Amino acid sequence: MAGVTGEPRIGDVYGELLRDTLAVATGIGPRPLAGGRVPRPVIEIIERDDGLINGAPAAQYLDGPQEWQPHDHRAVDRVRGATLDIGVGAGRIALLLQERGVPVTGLDVSPGALAVCRRRGVRELVHGTVDEHAASGRRYDTFLLLGNNLGLLEGRERAPAFLAALAAMANPGAQVIAQGTDPYGTRDPVHTGYHEHNRRRGRLGGQLRLRLRYRELATPWFDYLVCSPDELADLVRGTAWHLADIDDRDAPYYLATLRLPG
Amino acid sequence: MAGVTGEPRIGDVYGELLRDTLAVATGIGPRPLAGGRVPRPVIEIIERDDGLINGAPAAQYLDGPQEWQPHDHRAVDRVRGATLDIGVGAGRIALLLQERGVPVTGLDVSPGALAVCRRRGVRELVHGTVDEHAASGRRYDTFLLLGNNLGLLEGRERAPAFLAALAAMANPGAQVIAQGTDPYGTRDPVHTGYHEHNRRRGRLGGQLRLRLRYRELATPWFDYLVCSPDELADLVRGTAWHLADIDDRDAPYYLATLRLPG
Repeated sequence: MAGVTGEPRIGDVYGELLRDTLAVATGIGPRPLAGGRVPRPVIEIIERDDGLINGAPAAQYLDGPQEWQPHDHRAVDRVRGATLDIGVGAGRIALLLQERGVPVTGLDVSPGALAVCRRRGVRELVHGTVDEHAASGRRYDTFLLLGNNLGLLEGRERAPAFLAALAAMANPGAQVIAQGTDPYGTRDPVHTGYHEHNRRRGRLGGQLRLRLRYRELATPWFDYLVCSPDELADLVRGTAWHLADIDDRDAPYYLATLRLPG
Repeated sequence: MAGVTGEPRIGDVYGELLRDTLAVATGIGPRPLAGGRVPRPVIEIIERDDGLINGAPAAQYLDGPQEWQPHDHRAVDRVRGATLDIGVGAGRIALLLQERGVPVTGLDVSPGALAVCRRRGVRELVHGTVDEHAASGRRYDTFLLLGNNLGLLEGRERAPAFLAALAAMANPGAQVIAQGTDPYGTRDPVHTGYHEHNRRRGRLGGQLRLRLRYRELATPWFDYLVCSPDELADLVRGTAWHLADIDDRDAPYYLATLRLPG
């Protein structure tokens, strides 16, 4: 029976969240209602393994370019050639690239997110992880990790394999455009204490252990990396990539550009 | 050390939430920022004991009368005499009553909520539960349970004691104006399954077991009652109160009026 075990069910959190967000935005399809009547904004809930919890309105996943942060615009202006949008979400970046005639493929592990992308008009979509997609033989000139998706590097263990999977799909001279956030500007003890605790366990300070929740669903716990540009430089060293540029005009957010030899 | 135990800390969730909500609304005082820079809307997170979780923007606690639901207006129009606003929150109802010259006292168990009320101009405030306040000897003509606060009846065990505490503070002919929500219109298995599970445990179907969370804080788990007008009628039977009226013009929301003999 549904919903009596005390723990959320593992499921496609992003898929359900984005489907409902699209239904609220378009007025089409079943959508969450408070008291069965009043439209309820869709909220993404992010739980950290120390008990910290945050909610964020999911409507931002549908934002058009006029609502984006400035660094998102600078990121898409750096795109060239065949592009893989990693963690395509609801497709906001891929849709603009398509409009500009860029050959873009959206990759996501969430089947529901891909369904939302398809309904919104994203044409090239692939289900899976970067490792799975690397086996396809497809080649790209630009890899996008926007919306904080530099976090997919996870930490010291995963980062080399993740970057190797991108290199395996890369044309000569390919680039990665990744958006990160430097987490170390805060004095909030909830965060500085967490960073210290992480370091004592041999993890990077901002190596967050998270799960996402939406209604009765949760993701499994996963690592998501929030790191400084210096930490990123360390992670990139020894891989096929080199860190070509950090644009931190919107600090603490930054855009990192990694490049392969041409 | 803060934030590394895996479970949220028990604390004044509503107080912290409302203080931050006021800071975001006024631009005064420290307030939550994403990446230390972008203002972050304050989200109240409600977790049910089956793993269901929902987020709701907390800004509604500051809503002025022009943003209220119609039943809130009909509720305040029913007020007469000395009034106790139970679960005063950020004081939105109490502030309008004060403006109308109604002698109103705000009661809340959250010290932080009372601090927000004070800063917003609510003059009469009491910290505590209805049981604690009943010992004060104060007397009222109207008790308000708005914003779904009929839920404070909790269930079959607590309701008679809660209503007795109100009766102990009541002038002859006093009334309770309580806003509830009939939970049984849904076909969502997440909810209907929960209702069934509750009934099998001898609880009312909509006797929710909840906790609130905000950042690193949580409340203890508590019962909060979402019941039909018929279930309410059963709960009121045998108490000093009688159920004088149900206004369900905004169904599934309703306003229940209870009265004492004059």
